[in-house]
Amino acid sequence: VRIAVLGVGLIGGSVGLAARRRLGAEVAGWDRDDGVLGRALEAEALDEAADNVADAVAGAEIVVCAAPVSAMPELVDEALKASGPDAVVTDVGSTKRELIAGLPAEEERFIGGHPLAGAETSGVEHARADLFEGARWYLVPTERSGGLHYDRLQRAVAEMGARPQAIEAAAHDELMAMVSHLPHVIANVLVQEAASELASEDERLPEIGPSFRDTTRVAGANPAIWGDIFSANGEAVARAIDSVSERLHKAAELIRAGDRDAVADWHRGARDDRVRLLESEGAGGELRELRVVVQNKPGVVAEIALALGRDGVNIEDMQLYPAQDMSSGAISLWVAGADEAKRAEATVRKLGHNVSVVGGEE
Amino acid sequence: VRIAVLGVGLIGGSVGLAARRRLGAEVAGWDRDDGVLGRALEAEALDEAADNVADAVAGAEIVVCAAPVSAMPELVDEALKASGPDAVVTDVGSTKRELIAGLPAEEERFIGGHPLAGAETSGVEHARADLFEGARWYLVPTERSGGLHYDRLQRAVAEMGARPQAIEAAAHDELMAMVSHLPHVIANVLVQEAASELASEDERLPEIGPSFRDTTRVAGANPAIWGDIFSANGEAVARAIDSVSERLHKAAELIRAGDRDAVADWHRGARDDRVRLLESEGAGGELRELRVVVQNKPGVVAEIALALGRDGVNIEDMQLYPAQDMSSGAISLWVAGADEAKRAEATVRKLGHNVSVVGGEE
Repeated sequence: VRIAVLGVGLIGGSVGLAARRRLGAEVAGWDRDDGVLGRALEAEALDEAADNVADAVAGAEIVVCAAPVSAMPELVDEALKASGPDAVVTDVGSTKRELIAGLPAEEERFIGGHPLAGAETSGVEHARADLFEGARWYLVPTERSGGLHYDRLQRAVAEMGARPQAIEAAAHDELMAMVSHLPHVIANVLVQEAASELASEDERLPEIGPSFRDTTRVAGANPAIWGDIFSANGEAVARAIDSVSERLHKAAELIRAGDRDAVADWHRGARDDRVRLLESEGAGGELRELRVVVQNKPGVVAEIALALGRDGVNIEDMQLYPAQDMSSGAISLWVAGADEAKRAEATVRKLGHNVSVVGGEE
Repeated sequence: VRIAVLGVGLIGGSVGLAARRRLGAEVAGWDRDDGVLGRALEAEALDEAADNVADAVAGAEIVVCAAPVSAMPELVDEALKASGPDAVVTDVGSTKRELIAGLPAEEERFIGGHPLAGAETSGVEHARADLFEGARWYLVPTERSGGLHYDRLQRAVAEMGARPQAIEAAAHDELMAMVSHLPHVIANVLVQEAASELASEDERLPEIGPSFRDTTRVAGANPAIWGDIFSANGEAVARAIDSVSERLHKAAELIRAGDRDAVADWHRGARDDRVRLLESEGAGGELRELRVVVQNKPGVVAEIALALGRDGVNIEDMQLYPAQDMSSGAISLWVAGADEAKRAEATVRKLGHNVSVVGGEE
């Protein structure tokens, strides 16, 4: 099979690596930036670097467009025009409605795609053949997409290790608005609110706790990319914002009314929702949280992680809460399943740290 | 100096330990739960365990009330009545207005207190003498609080290693509403929105990304405590919610209008705010983020942390982004200052991982 990759960053490069190693594919690549192509060849993500889109897609059965969201419509259009009548053209962008709405009405060869992987890094330097291993890869056919095209793309995605799932463009964009775009908007708004409130007090900035840090971690992340995503998925994001804003309004009313039991019930409901949404993620059972109190000195995280590693316990997630002067702090560790948590607790205790497994019985 | 601690959990126990070791104080403690008192004596947090409040406060120059927020008004009232005419009575709760509003009009001996420490764990088992080292400790005098009382309390707080700062009750509660209580409300609302949206699709839950996980990490945390905090600080929390809700409304309008540049500017502004609010925290310069791509197997976090420890690089914060099947993933590490970041980058690269320092030049 011959595959063309247009745009060879982290995702495009990883598609190249995975397709070459796992599908035995011949991969041609093109990128606006020649330097990127050189690095992609070096990383063995491509068999050949093409000078232009037409050369890259010549003879390709699958064409993967991996440009930023704002450049995608133009690139997909170019790919559809340049590629053969039997090629399936797909993309890897994080929004779909706008892109699909812009296709020619009769186009049968386009099927949208969105692998949920690699959001944390960028660049072909970080590409790897197993980036998609076990990852959801949404496939977004249009009403006209051909069955054979879909079959071919789905198979390639599965062979790269991903788990393909079909979804309609509107449902995809709404889902992404909720679980990815909305948290970014909220993080933005929260830091802006805090910055304006605290600046107006004209004081030295106060200590800011871990909850604020967590909630705003993605604020303003990667402005070039996110400006485009918010715009491309504007309707769905705006609707999700409206809905959350309405919920906040109700929360304010509830809290103002001052019924402690009602507030506690509402809060408890949020915990149940969170457990249902998040804690069943991952392999090996529900995530359990261990809280460890440590001296925050070089080596202490290593010591704990190493001891757990020796016991075969994997740390699925970790959060440090350093004390203000960084002299000491607490560490939250999440491990999969109650048994694993028990084992981890014993191991950490043996190192002489205070440790407890959070929740579960409450 | 003789100090009484009423309620000997994490904070009360740590006050006991710090006061005994650093102030050479004689510490008497009382707790509703006899078992707690036994454990507190074992941990050497107390010199003596009292049977009741009156016995505990007898002869005390400082009385520290460390009960949950909902029990605080009654406990403070009892402490004021039982303690001598010269004793200063303080609390460690996270809201102040309601408490101070409930004091007798002529009361001169009460000064509120709020150490920003220890939110991550609870119980006297986790108490430690250095819990307050370098931590902000807000002191909240009333209009009637005596100067000598204030001086005595401030000195004790500073000697326990904390950094005391005076703040008015209303300002304190508004500050806490913003940087601590509001993020909890937002986390709650976001998981509730997602749970209701996704449940209505009657499908298997979709993959949820790190941004959603971060933003909702504290959703529903510790319902017993938070129901009370939201209620006790209801007005300030509700006002902060209203304000954020208004900002969200404007963000939705901006995004709906579809001006990509305006959206990108707004997003970039959020990044600047975040940098200003958060990244100058801690010692040793602005926090820098390193992104590392690794195999997510037992030992890999340890290996990295250990190598950094060997180099004397301290990890101030850490976040793991495991791939869906936990086979691989990315790690974000925050270290203090550009030099430290450079050193850390070289060390991690030598281990054979892909690593880059995020941002800075963008």
